Amino acid sequence: RIKASGLKLQLCTNETQATRENFVRKLRAMGFDISVAEVTAPAPAACRLLRERGLRPHLLVHDDLVPEFAEIDKTNPNCVVLGDAAENFTYANLNEAFRLLIGMEKPVLISLGQGRYYKETDGLKLDVGAYMKALEYACDVQAEVVGKPAKRFFESALAELGVPPEQAIMIGDDIENDVGGAQQCGMRALQVRTGKYR
Amino acid sequence: RIKASGLKLQLCTNETQATRENFVRKLRAMGFDISVAEVTAPAPAACRLLRERGLRPHLLVHDDLVPEFAEIDKTNPNCVVLGDAAENFTYANLNEAFRLLIGMEKPVLISLGQGRYYKETDGLKLDVGAYMKALEYACDVQAEVVGKPAKRFFESALAELGVPPEQAIMIGDDIENDVGGAQQCGMRALQVRTGKYR
Repeated sequence: RIKASGLKLQLCTNETQATRENFVRKLRAMGFDISVAEVTAPAPAACRLLRERGLRPHLLVHDDLVPEFAEIDKTNPNCVVLGDAAENFTYANLNEAFRLLIGMEKPVLISLGQGRYYKETDGLKLDVGAYMKALEYACDVQAEVVGKPAKRFFESALAELGVPPEQAIMIGDDIENDVGGAQQCGMRALQVRTGKYR
Repeated sequence: RIKASGLKLQLCTNETQATRENFVRKLRAMGFDISVAEVTAPAPAACRLLRERGLRPHLLVHDDLVPEFAEIDKTNPNCVVLGDAAENFTYANLNEAFRLLIGMEKPVLISLGQGRYYKETDGLKLDVGAYMKALEYACDVQAEVVGKPAKRFFESALAELGVPPEQAIMIGDDIENDVGGAQQCGMRALQVRTGKYR
């Protein structure tokens, strides 16, 4: 309906449990007419940042997200990239990421979002932000967040659209990541009371 | 040697992976002449607090610590008690504790310490403080810490000794939990460069 109206649409997702390709496949199966180019997501934003700074990540992410980092050198890691790893958030994996980080001369932690929690069919789950805080505290570092609500993230979505912030509106269910982040960019925002809204 | 010198000794531990009985047994096996009464530990301190406030905990702690809470009513929990759960820090257990907390009208999170990490034979491990920060962030609550470096904790150790703070010295390897906590109580403190010191 949005597309039929002639309005431009860019999907800003903090989805870090799947590649954009898989994400788009799911949405298309639900009947949404959307392409990979219309999706702004944290993993490709992180890849740009890693390349710019010559960083080689240790990944603590969901298995299904790993292909997004296929082109990135991951030998001898000098940073940790944290996504919503879900079942990969094991005690062993968290300790491994922690040990690598604290062993670095200058620990760099990149987090694909800072959400507190999200809702799945079987209930609320801790989101990547909670694990980010755990590693921040243990290593006394501050994570660099790519994805919502980072200003850069919304700006890159606006650049894709070729639209200034004051002509765009962000629609989302998260008051901080969606609404707050967009407002910090000069966009208007609308909170929908679906999903995790409570 | 301390005992032979006539000095009074109270052992302040943040050990939350075992009951005091087990802890003392280990120390005795190493040749230390110590009794349960000479140990101040977070779990019994938490039990006092739970009783005082009529709190019924959901426990996310190490299996070996559970007996310390044997006398405590744990039905229909109205708070979460977090210890160094080690292998019990699974994704499922963390989500369960989170869901209980966020479902409470007034979430109460009690943490048996706030250490960042500790050292084991196979390397550094995230300590209870990291997981405390994760739950604090996800639920937007502040944990109540029993154990070092809480002032109350040192005060109860001093009370056991019957000694004022200015006549006591704290010896430990952790600059925040041991040295900082004791100094806040008016005690002098000595940092030893063993254990996790780096």
